[in-house]
Amino acid sequence: MSIPSIPFQPFRLELPGWITEYLMQQQETYPTREARMDLVTTLARLNIQFGTGGPFGAGIFRLDTQQLVAPGVNLVLWSKSSIAHAEIVAIMMAQQAAGSHDLGAIGFPPHELVTSCEPCGMCLGAISWSGVQQVVCGARGSDAEAVGFDEGPKPADWITELEQRGITVTRDIGRTNAAAVLQRYVQNGGEVYNGRQGL
Amino acid sequence: MSIPSIPFQPFRLELPGWITEYLMQQQETYPTREARMDLVTTLARLNIQFGTGGPFGAGIFRLDTQQLVAPGVNLVLWSKSSIAHAEIVAIMMAQQAAGSHDLGAIGFPPHELVTSCEPCGMCLGAISWSGVQQVVCGARGSDAEAVGFDEGPKPADWITELEQRGITVTRDIGRTNAAAVLQRYVQNGGEVYNGRQGL
Repeated sequence: MSIPSIPFQPFRLELPGWITEYLMQQQETYPTREARMDLVTTLARLNIQFGTGGPFGAGIFRLDTQQLVAPGVNLVLWSKSSIAHAEIVAIMMAQQAAGSHDLGAIGFPPHELVTSCEPCGMCLGAISWSGVQQVVCGARGSDAEAVGFDEGPKPADWITELEQRGITVTRDIGRTNAAAVLQRYVQNGGEVYNGRQGL
Repeated sequence: MSIPSIPFQPFRLELPGWITEYLMQQQETYPTREARMDLVTTLARLNIQFGTGGPFGAGIFRLDTQQLVAPGVNLVLWSKSSIAHAEIVAIMMAQQAAGSHDLGAIGFPPHELVTSCEPCGMCLGAISWSGVQQVVCGARGSDAEAVGFDEGPKPADWITELEQRGITVTRDIGRTNAAAVLQRYVQNGGEVYNGRQGL
């Protein structure tokens, strides 16, 4: 481990090249929740296939034009950053593209976060600050836990917590496909990194 | 708001120049919790003074050499990213400096996160994945709420949640000074941005 040094280098997180190549071949709009979930579940699957991270995909969409604003995949190992969960990556990229810390700012169209799995505690908090108006989830948190992932510190009534902040939650869209990606990752020996978990 | 475009630009977060200038004038080690808290509370105060963000400061320290590994301040408005809370910035920067997503990896010294205010729900989750072994808090979450900040979705037993993952929590170190920074920010008309809060 290197000695700390001043000045500190800027933090930089780049999407893997395969995401750009894949998205350039896709449709321009995603008119249904199912189509949006299909995209982010495919990103999760490709993230395993290309070896760039864990089995989680996300995307932020404009609900007026039904376009993808920014994709996200789990890039924890790729970026050497435990922050880089799929939802966080999508929020970072979408806000940077929009030029605002608040995707719900006046003058912006409504935005939807679609995630291949229910958010962990960190991503739940990040969603509440992001300005998205809707969240759509594929696999359940329990599906992730069933293959060894930790959901982190998260209130049991997390859906109510989001709804109290004006964010609607829809679950179980394409759950079977999304949960299958989690199972495939673990069956293929993918690393389940859970922080310290009491060790 | 611009039309989404492919390829997506890398996410980039740079610390304001004043942080580097300030830290270069400070001591090389911070041997006590109080000294470490003094530093992060000063960063919170300077963050207001230089107009780069909200009244929150943090730092990650190596407990073997008692050096600062990475500082953090709230850069939500500066970086146009709702992710950029002080704790998240410190974790991003520290992991990048260490070259690992896990500050608790084998061969690393123990790391401590010191934060001028108890973490919100997002930062709580981020702490649990970061690999730090200790968290030291200045102001209470209730001090932040008292001046209008929202703690976000966060389990009531958040300290237990961290302790179950091997992370100890110490509260109320320099609480009076840290809470005073929160109060000063709001008294001076600083923006309290809380996401949508049901709007």
